[in-house]
Amino acid sequence: MKIIAHIKNDYTTKFGIPRQSGLAQTIGYIVFEPEYRVNEALRGIDGYSHLWLIWDFSEAHRDKWSPTVRPPRLGGNKHVGVFATRSPFRPNPIGLSCVRLLGTEQTKDGTVLKVQGADLMNGTPIYDIKPYIAYTDSIPDAVCGFADEVMGDRLAVTITDTQLCKLPSDKQKALVALLMGDPRPSYQDDDTRVYGFEYAGFEIKFTVVGNMLTVKEIK
Amino acid sequence: MKIIAHIKNDYTTKFGIPRQSGLAQTIGYIVFEPEYRVNEALRGIDGYSHLWLIWDFSEAHRDKWSPTVRPPRLGGNKHVGVFATRSPFRPNPIGLSCVRLLGTEQTKDGTVLKVQGADLMNGTPIYDIKPYIAYTDSIPDAVCGFADEVMGDRLAVTITDTQLCKLPSDKQKALVALLMGDPRPSYQDDDTRVYGFEYAGFEIKFTVVGNMLTVKEIK
Repeated sequence: MKIIAHIKNDYTTKFGIPRQSGLAQTIGYIVFEPEYRVNEALRGIDGYSHLWLIWDFSEAHRDKWSPTVRPPRLGGNKHVGVFATRSPFRPNPIGLSCVRLLGTEQTKDGTVLKVQGADLMNGTPIYDIKPYIAYTDSIPDAVCGFADEVMGDRLAVTITDTQLCKLPSDKQKALVALLMGDPRPSYQDDDTRVYGFEYAGFEIKFTVVGNMLTVKEIK
Repeated sequence: MKIIAHIKNDYTTKFGIPRQSGLAQTIGYIVFEPEYRVNEALRGIDGYSHLWLIWDFSEAHRDKWSPTVRPPRLGGNKHVGVFATRSPFRPNPIGLSCVRLLGTEQTKDGTVLKVQGADLMNGTPIYDIKPYIAYTDSIPDAVCGFADEVMGDRLAVTITDTQLCKLPSDKQKALVALLMGDPRPSYQDDDTRVYGFEYAGFEIKFTVVGNMLTVKEIK
């Protein structure tokens, strides 16, 4: 497997990355490796609104595989078969994410793809990029096991303008979307705890009481 | 990359395999390699109606990659960038297919998955199996480049839940379908213009940039 590209985005730590693609509003850039920096290879890609990324769960490599995992969304104590989850801890640590293609940009690293919604950490190696083809890939009424059961979980986010405006305007919406998705490790549920994570070079501190997330500080 | 399973089906030659998953109604069986023949790894999978298969285009290995391919759908004489296609001839020959999960069966080769719609040749090695999760994987209105040209022109529709929920639930799907069909007067193509029309007693306002329709307001 050859690395064809890496992603460049604001997720500089694992903590805080949304658990699925699309939940994130964050913008990212797909920068090709020199060998694959060939404009011809992208001819026609701008006709697609969405792309699949197939990538390396580079932070989840293990020597041995485990038949079950404990998804954080289920509270972290229920065992589920690895092939019934999108967990990174699988026999081949390959990730699959659907992103929105916003366009191409010319940079010193050649033509890069500007995408939205990637749940990849900054620097993640990418193995393949494929166009999203709705007539085969879109199954709106697919039944989705426990993923369906827990999808109702969204937090109400309270954040003052003063805090929010510390972020560049193009990152504000993305942060709120990310917070609504509940970036806490799910096995934690402590009303009094101040959680913190890094986003776009800022430190975000928040508390969660019930379904209410309150941002305490951005710096 | 470890081979975790192989598919068993009736496609014994490349010729005649549908060009995308889902287009095939054929039944196939996913037979795990001995190391991965562990029932626990499938726990919970029966809660999903569809699965992703990530597999090896084992019949399409090449020593060198080519930046462009000539998709059969386009008559075989138009060059398209490899990342704008699902062609097997790509830097990493990895296939991605969505299949319907019909159930599990006990066989002498352990528990196998019975699936429908796989566009894989008999014996194809499989690297990963993931559940299909509609809320991230299903984008019914994705714009699909030349794949659309051969399936019919549609717009990608962006609409927030807040806006969409102003409509009665039985009209929401119909509105999106209507917007995908491009309700603009066809002689108009003005990126900056806010178009408006009435639907089910509501006023719908939207813009169109390229193939992207964005709903601005519903009232």
